[in-house]
Amino acid sequence: MPEEKGLLIVYTGPGKGKTTCALGTAFRAVGQGLKVLMVQFIKGSWHYGELDAAKLLGDDKFEIRPMGRGFVKIGGGETDPQDIKLAQECWLAGHDAIYSGKYDLVVLDEINYTISYKMIDADEVVEALKDRPERVHVICTGRNAHPKLVELADLVTEMREVKHPYTKGILAQRGIDY
Amino acid sequence: MPEEKGLLIVYTGPGKGKTTCALGTAFRAVGQGLKVLMVQFIKGSWHYGELDAAKLLGDDKFEIRPMGRGFVKIGGGETDPQDIKLAQECWLAGHDAIYSGKYDLVVLDEINYTISYKMIDADEVVEALKDRPERVHVICTGRNAHPKLVELADLVTEMREVKHPYTKGILAQRGIDY
Repeated sequence: MPEEKGLLIVYTGPGKGKTTCALGTAFRAVGQGLKVLMVQFIKGSWHYGELDAAKLLGDDKFEIRPMGRGFVKIGGGETDPQDIKLAQECWLAGHDAIYSGKYDLVVLDEINYTISYKMIDADEVVEALKDRPERVHVICTGRNAHPKLVELADLVTEMREVKHPYTKGILAQRGIDY
Repeated sequence: MPEEKGLLIVYTGPGKGKTTCALGTAFRAVGQGLKVLMVQFIKGSWHYGELDAAKLLGDDKFEIRPMGRGFVKIGGGETDPQDIKLAQECWLAGHDAIYSGKYDLVVLDEINYTISYKMIDADEVVEALKDRPERVHVICTGRNAHPKLVELADLVTEMREVKHPYTKGILAQRGIDY
């Protein structure tokens, strides 16, 4: 077993903290001199705190690319073709980054969601992650991680919701929720 | 219900990602212009990636104070008095920061651990958090969150360990684990 090995990490489950945990890992990685890319499968142009924070670290250290449109439109059992197209473009960007040699850590934010809705192909993703350059760390976030992805992963943490502020009628708070 | 309200957040459970999730929240908060302090009840002088990353953000935005010695010595059912002293100093620092008006978010990293080992008093902590200035966000991390803390909290996420790299014989990886 080599001492330096790119890990495949999955943050899943219904509780809050999956993307946040990926941000924390990215933050720590940057502190150790690693170069990080996060592609966001769902998030779009809405202004998130992490975008500004990433710029504070220095533009070339932690790049975040929101590539969705903030939501996915599913009606009558069918996903909007526009969302499928965006998800596939995002997967292509993530795939290319993983194989580019330019990044030490690539975060595929909310990819689990797009796999579970069959917007991108689970087998294609799993094969690409299995064959990736050995030193590259990858984090996949989102509910309902695919069993094949869990099988391949080195670390899987499931976030369980014990208590959620929205159930107490508290609105999303700037700086905490976004 | 006011729209801007300081949240009390608890990240607990045996899975990996509790401190990491707090780091991610801190990172996002800094991006929104919030001022953040993390006091670390257990971590000591060992060199962690997050320390350097916090400096990259600008010294005054996210301050991390490791105030433990990296471990807690418990033998024959008794906790080393030195560790109790360190934990109490850390709680004092966290308490003062919460009430100082200088921080928007204070992270009490691994405080749950020190409460569960009765190194600091649960009731004292819960009372102080209940009476804190309304706009201050607080995050408590660590396994075995005290029931009274969970009761008071707005958001509680439990990290469940599905798969851990150490069980596969993989060593802690720089930039990911530290």
